[in-house]
Parts: sequence; structure tokens; C-alpha cells
Amino acid sequence: MSEFRASGTVTLLTDFGLEDPFVGIMKGVMLREHSALRFIDVSHAVPPQDIRLGDLWLAQSYRWFAPGCVHLCVVDPGVGSDRAALAVRAGGHHFVAPDNGVLSSVLRAEPHAEARRIEPERLGIAEISRTFQGRDVFAPIAARLASDKLSFEAIGPLWQPVLLPEQPPSQTDDELSGRVIAVDHFGNLITNLPGRWLSPAHTRVELAGRALRVVASYSEAELGECVGLLSSFETLEIAQRNGHAARALGLARDAQVRVVRAERSP
Amino acid sequence: MSEFRASGTVTLLTDFGLEDPFVGIMKGVMLREHSALRFIDVSHAVPPQDIRLGDLWLAQSYRWFAPGCVHLCVVDPGVGSDRAALAVRAGGHHFVAPDNGVLSSVLRAEPHAEARRIEPERLGIAEISRTFQGRDVFAPIAARLASDKLSFEAIGPLWQPVLLPEQPPSQTDDELSGRVIAVDHFGNLITNLPGRWLSPAHTRVELAGRALRVVASYSEAELGECVGLLSSFETLEIAQRNGHAARALGLARDAQVRVVRAERSP
Amino acid sequence: MSEFRASGTVTLLTDFGLEDPFVGIMKGVMLREHSALRFIDVSHAVPPQDIRLGDLWLAQSYRWFAPGCVHLCVVDPGVGSDRAALAVRAGGHHFVAPDNGVLSSVLRAEPHAEARRIEPERLGIAEISRTFQGRDVFAPIAARLASDKLSFEAIGPLWQPVLLPEQPPSQTDDELSGRVIAVDHFGNLITNLPGRWLSPAHTRVELAGRALRVVASYSEAELGECVGLLSSFETLEIAQRNGHAARALGLARDAQVRVVRAERSP
Repeated sequence: MSEFRASGTVTLLTDFGLEDPFVGIMKGVMLREHSALRFIDVSHAVPPQDIRLGDLWLAQSYRWFAPGCVHLCVVDPGVGSDRAALAVRAGGHHFVAPDNGVLSSVLRAEPHAEARRIEPERLGIAEISRTFQGRDVFAPIAARLASDKLSFEAIGPLWQPVLLPEQPPSQTDDELSGRVIAVDHFGNLITNLPGRWLSPAHTRVELAGRALRVVASYSEAELGECVGLLSSFETLEIAQRNGHAARALGLARDAQVRVVRAERSP
Repeated sequence: MSEFRASGTVTLLTDFGLEDPFVGIMKGVMLREHSALRFIDVSHAVPPQDIRLGDLWLAQSYRWFAPGCVHLCVVDPGVGSDRAALAVRAGGHHFVAPDNGVLSSVLRAEPHAEARRIEPERLGIAEISRTFQGRDVFAPIAARLASDKLSFEAIGPLWQPVLLPEQPPSQTDDELSGRVIAVDHFGNLITNLPGRWLSPAHTRVELAGRALRVVASYSEAELGECVGLLSSFETLEIAQRNGHAARALGLARDAQVRVVRAERSP
Repeated sequence: MSEFRASGTVTLLTDFGLEDPFVGIMKGVMLREHSALRFIDVSHAVPPQDIRLGDLWLAQSYRWFAPGCVHLCVVDPGVGSDRAALAVRAGGHHFVAPDNGVLSSVLRAEPHAEARRIEPERLGIAEISRTFQGRDVFAPIAARLASDKLSFEAIGPLWQPVLLPEQPPSQTDDELSGRVIAVDHFGNLITNLPGRWLSPAHTRVELAGRALRVVASYSEAELGECVGLLSSFETLEIAQRNGHAARALGLARDAQVRVVRAERSP
């Protein structure tokens, strides 16, 4: 079990968008718990109810923050049902989220993670809507954890969280096989193929009947060329230089990707 | 008249969007007045010049913040004309906005509200553009109020603010009648029918020739079903489970909504 | 050479968008350097790789902030190539950006600006991806400058930055000639014609075969009328009252604009 020293920082990751006042309202609720909190928005553009993408962005972002942060993640298609509300301590961080799998990758990455079911009534949280528990449950708990007003142990009983099924990539002597797990703002296709699997002999990416070169940086590609390279998440990425690879290739999330060795490797 | 103790927090609600540097510039101007302010963005996606939606989001959001906040609201189609600039003290909060009706719901909700006309020249604000008074007038006044550098009384003379016409819902023994006042990021239709009017006998929503069930939470609906339920603003909301009700129903703001009693209520 | 006293504020201007966790990750990295930093988002909606618009928004925004800020600007089509990473001290501010011209207007506006090439390895920055140097290089340097943990002189050697070609407006006795340099959220066309060139005799804007009136504020235009007026950046702007001038006129960035004198000026 890891230590936790609250840093006063709460990160937010939701599917709420930024048009409506929902995110601001959650911050208002948190400031009422503790007026000196610091908020960092990770993303509010997770597609509605897209637990898998919420899980990915959370797992990719939390490790860039110092331990002691609370990561509030509300992608919650089951709001108002009897799904549990969850707090997790892992790697020196706290996470607050609905129990629907959105913490799967964090839990798999942190073997000593500990999960507890939030019991709102025990914590004096009485008025809970059936439609906005980000405001009514998750925000106050996150704020109290982030300000050391609530100990993790006092949240509720230990709990076995829901996990999403794994869809791991695979490798053989001849090729690596994975899939696109996200398309970013630039149109780059982020795959789940670990960069550490790539060797200098892996010179070609194959996807949707096309073969692309593997290069070391965007600038090694010709203008308009689509290439494979190491993403900032240390997985294989497909990019078009100064262009939008997803549109250029007509591909989206879950597309299959293979990386093959050069016929005559050195 | 309510007390006000500045908390150092300024919320922002505008129709400026987030593409251009306008919101950042307002924050820069406020930090020049007082470098320790805290900013919470409520929304910058109010449709251009949409005073009614700005009024709604402001009224729905401010009450989730602790008293002592300053709420800066710039939806300002009359910028550069002779419309007044306004500061309002209400419910322990301060509001700074153009005098165009955008504070109507706040003023109606807070019977002891007090409004003053901002007199910029009296406050040493000399260079005022005709196109961006959010930067030149509203931001500096908000910053000074939020940092207790300016007393409310010193802002200018008492003033009678512009109010938008009311469009209240109505009820009879047989039915409730209201309209859609907003469509949120998820496509949910938020109505102006108060949740406290709803009884267990109100089992059916009628709109655009359709009849929908009233349920208690999204998860009680079938996948793809459109239903009525209590929104997080405590009004009736029309939602499609894991879908976009506005698109599914082909409806937008101002659509008429009725709620009727079951033919044989218990 | 200008003084610099760190205020603890970092502004951010990128082409990263807000959908992905990239901006949040940069803030996490900066908070690890110094937990008390304050972040102000200027824009993350610069179109991908659009150095010219990044240059414009940066030059228009930084001067509204108090001296002592660090302005982090990452529009970086050359990431992973051998383009330099740059820190600039100018007008009491610091700027951190790739050396690709995005600081051109700041450098031209501040004659005593001083530029240094960032030498990451000398500063103990070892792990640098080829795809996200906003996170790996620019964010940590910005954070250290903003918290006074790194002196400007220690960053690296003096450097001659890349400058974008100038496209200045021109004036004759008869007319002013310039172009549209940005279209804002409201559809207003911002031009590069300086407001100080406009005299009361300049009564007509000509563009795309149309002639528009010059007025003093939006409210002087008829509803739906397109007019010229002084923008908040003190240049000529083309706007449609309560409308979207770019759509109404079918015009975009780089459109040519002329302002002519009235036939019978006083």
C-alpha cells in the first residue's frame, strides 16, 4: 500500500464537454469543501459514455503528475443506478470515479492499488441527484481527499472494482499485431503496440492494405506521407506529416495494425 | 442587503469561445489588478449574443459556489453602445455584467439584490475600447471586487437593471406545461418545469406528438428509449439512454413540453 | 535588456486542442517542477502547425499580462528535427517556444529582446521524445523560469531566432491597403491595418467587390449590416452586427482589404 500526501491538486477528466456549466459547478462544489484547491483539466471531451477512452487518457496522464494528486474521473453512463462509487489509492495518487471499468488501466499498472466503495451517507452526503453525481458525490469526496480532510480508510469498505476486458497486442518472430486505441487532435492514430517491442528491423507498418515506413520523427517523413513512429506514450503511432492521418487513411479507433520486419534485416 | 466577504475567486461566463485569446487576456488584466486571484471557467460557449442562455447558466451555476465569489458574465451584443455596465450584490455574491438582462434570473432569485451602474471614469478606467469592454471595464472591476480593493458602494449609483420577459411554466389539475430552455452537451433537453410540481401520478411526457415515460434515472430507460426524468437542476429533463435526445426527437430550445397524469392514478 | 521578476504565472498557447490530455500533462510536468505555479490558457485552438496564427495570438495577448510571466508557446511542426528550442526575454516577460518564427511579432515589438538556445542536456533534461517536446523540454524550462529556479543566462548560448517574413500593410494619400490576419469566434475579420492610420475621412472599406461603411461601434450598424470598425487590437475589423461577417462575406484569412477616403472629405 502506497503513502499519500495530499498536494491540493485535483485533476478532472470527464465526458461533460465545456459548453455547459457542469465542470464549473463541480469546481464550485470542491472550493466549498476547501478554498485553496488547484484544478487541472485533463480533458472534458471524452465522447459521451466512452469508458474505454476515459480509461486510456487517465492512465496516460496521471503518471505525469506528482504523487499526492487526486484524479477525478467522471464518465458515468450508470449514474443513478446501483453501480458503486469508487475511491482508489495507487502509486501515491488517489482516484475518484464510478465503478464501471474507467480505472482498469490504472489498476493494472499499479499492483498495490487499493479500492474502497464510497458510502456517501456515512460521509454526511445526503442530497444526491440521480443524474449528476459528479457534483453530488465525486466532487466533494475528491476535494476532501485532496485537502486531507478525509482519510482514505474512512471512505468505505474495501471493494473489488469492475475491470474492462483486456485487448492486448501480440508479437511473433515475424510481426507485431495490435490496434488503434485513440485518434488524437492532430489525426494521429495511437496504437497499443509497445515501443519497446520495436527493433530497427521493424521497418514497415501494415494497415488497411497499405504499407508505411517506420521513421524516428515527423520531420523524416515527406510532406503528406503517412508513417509509423514512436508516440509520446511510447507506443507505435501512425502520423501524416503536417496532415491528418486518420482522414488520409480513412481509419478510426480499433483499426488493426501490424508491424513487420524488413525482408533482409541486417 | 447581503454581506460580502471576497474569497478571491472569479467565475467567468462568456460567449467568447476558447479559440481566440480573449478569455486569457481578461484573466491577464485581472491578474494585473491582483496577482492571487483564482479563476473558474463556467462556460465560454454561450452562443454569440445569446443573453437568455447566459442568464440560465449563470443562475444555475452561481449557487454552487461559496458566497464571496465574483461572477463575471460577458454576453454583450450592445458593447460600445450606451447600455450600462452593471455590478450586482446578491445572496452574498457579486456579479459584473452588461445591463442587458443577463442577470434577470439571479435578480429574480435574490429578492435583496442591489444593483449599481459602473462609472468607469470615476474608477480611474480611462482607455475603453468600443468592442471589448470585457477586457477594459468588466475584468478590472471584477478583479477589484474579488480582491476587496473596491467596495460595492464605490462602484457607482444605484440602478434599475433591465429584466428579460418571463416565460413561466403553468400547471392545471390535469397537466403541466412548459418548454425546453436548453439542450446540453449530451443532447438532453432541459425544461423549465419544476421538479417539485411532479407527482408520482405524472407518468407521461408529451412533446412533438410523442408520449414518453417518466422514470427516476437514465438506467431505468431501455437503451435508445427517450424518457422524462428529474434533471440535476431540479427541473424535468428529456433524455435518451446512451443517446442524444435532441437529435433523436428532432427538437431544440423552446419546444413545448407537457406532462400529464396517468389515466388511472392510484 | 529588460529585468525579469518571476510572478509564478505561466500562460499557454498551443495547437494541441483540448480533447486529448496533452495540455493537462504539460501542466502536471510543470507542477512537478514547482507546485505553486499559476496557469492561464491563452488558446489551444491554433490550427495544427499554424505558426503565423500562433505568432499573432501570442503578440496580441502577452502585453495584457503583468511583467514577470512566462509565455509557453508550442506550435511545433518541426518537433523531433534539429530545429532549436528557444527562450526569449523581452519587455519584462519570458517566452519559451520552438525556433520556427512563432515569436516573430514579439521580437519585432520588443527591440531589446534577447534570445537563447535551450540546451536540454546541460540543464539535466535527459529523456526527450521525438514527438512531444512541449512536455519534455518546453514545459520544464518554462516552469523553472516561472519559479526563479533557473536564470535566463543559464539556459544556453545567445541565439539568432528565425523570423517569419513580414507582410506589412501600406498607405497612400488615397487609400490604406492590408489584409485579414485572423477570423475570430464571432466571425469578425481582424485586419492588419493600424487603427492610428484611420482618419474621419476614411469612410469606406472595400473588399471582395463590396463597399462597407466605417462606424464607431457594432451598435451603429443596422442588424445584418457588415461594417468596418476599430478592433480591440487597435486594427481595422470587419464585423456583421449580431452576425458572422466571414460567412456573410464569404471571406477568410489573407483576403485583401482597402480603406478609401470619402469622395468629398471635409
